[in-house]
Amino acid sequence: MAQHVAGPEIERLIQLLARLPGLGPRSARRAALHLIKKRDTLLNPLSDAMRIANERIVVCSTCGNVDTSDPCTICRDGKRDPSILVVVEDVSDLWALERSGAVNAKYHVLGGVLSPLDGVRPEHLNLDRLVARASEPGVAEVILALNATVDGQTTAHYITELLGHLPVKVTKLAHGVPVGGELDYLDEGTLSAAIRQRTSF
Amino acid sequence: MAQHVAGPEIERLIQLLARLPGLGPRSARRAALHLIKKRDTLLNPLSDAMRIANERIVVCSTCGNVDTSDPCTICRDGKRDPSILVVVEDVSDLWALERSGAVNAKYHVLGGVLSPLDGVRPEHLNLDRLVARASEPGVAEVILALNATVDGQTTAHYITELLGHLPVKVTKLAHGVPVGGELDYLDEGTLSAAIRQRTSF
Repeated sequence: MAQHVAGPEIERLIQLLARLPGLGPRSARRAALHLIKKRDTLLNPLSDAMRIANERIVVCSTCGNVDTSDPCTICRDGKRDPSILVVVEDVSDLWALERSGAVNAKYHVLGGVLSPLDGVRPEHLNLDRLVARASEPGVAEVILALNATVDGQTTAHYITELLGHLPVKVTKLAHGVPVGGELDYLDEGTLSAAIRQRTSF
Repeated sequence: MAQHVAGPEIERLIQLLARLPGLGPRSARRAALHLIKKRDTLLNPLSDAMRIANERIVVCSTCGNVDTSDPCTICRDGKRDPSILVVVEDVSDLWALERSGAVNAKYHVLGGVLSPLDGVRPEHLNLDRLVARASEPGVAEVILALNATVDGQTTAHYITELLGHLPVKVTKLAHGVPVGGELDYLDEGTLSAAIRQRTSF
């Protein structure tokens, strides 16, 4: 192990870097060495950026997004359609949808999905606030942009029932062939859905 | 892009993380989000570890290793054979050899290899100090543990000539079949070397 040759400070840096998703023990060592070599242009700025992020980042009390202001940039954005709420599992899904530019509406981050196996129950999710927001006058549609997994779809059904008494339309993402996808590699469920939900040319 | 939805502080964190080897733009976003979620257990400690590393890490003026002391832990280690100098390109190679436990000697980190294409000339490498160390009484062998690349082998030849006038034995790593390697997947050069340098069973 490297602890015998490098000081404990370097070893600690490697161990912490190895806990980042996408970095294993080996790539964490490489990243640590890269940081040490690029001290002025990377190690210092990254350390500062982390400290600043830690000081300023807050969770939006309205939608659950992370930002440096509460309400977050999206909740304060007057150019977005306030009649549509896009429900996502995680902030990463919000970012993905924003990158796609597919929808210009407000978001609601659940902070997870229902999962009996992992012990995630409704009270662990940001659901009370969702019902409150969906009840506000002016909200016409709730798009459930949840993952097409068992837990994601279970959560989608649960939310659909939860919002059943409200005068809002609850919709979900279409299933189908991914753009650029080859039929040969797709599972039967996706192909069936793509046929069932076919659109006119 | 995420800069429209996340604050500039988060965007800067993502950009800096993306410059780590092994992380691309997508995994940097995931890493940033992971850091933000694990603020107390990861973001804070990592930021501190980086600051401490930056304050304390020095390059060993004897061998070129990075450590928090000069001379480094290895150069100060009295249990190592001082008659052998292992020459490596980079600190990462030193770490790799230490992990293998293959040799218990002193090191010398060149800080690169000669490369006409990249404009790396002898004066850019830690060579003067190598000649001085190899000239010290008590040094009997210099092991050139350089990569088996064109530049690595060019550098090995250059160093062999550079040390030619000294009463030290200059050796290099053996070529051969990697442990666990399958012959079918090895190149001709490796196979030829493995046959030429075969050992008795």
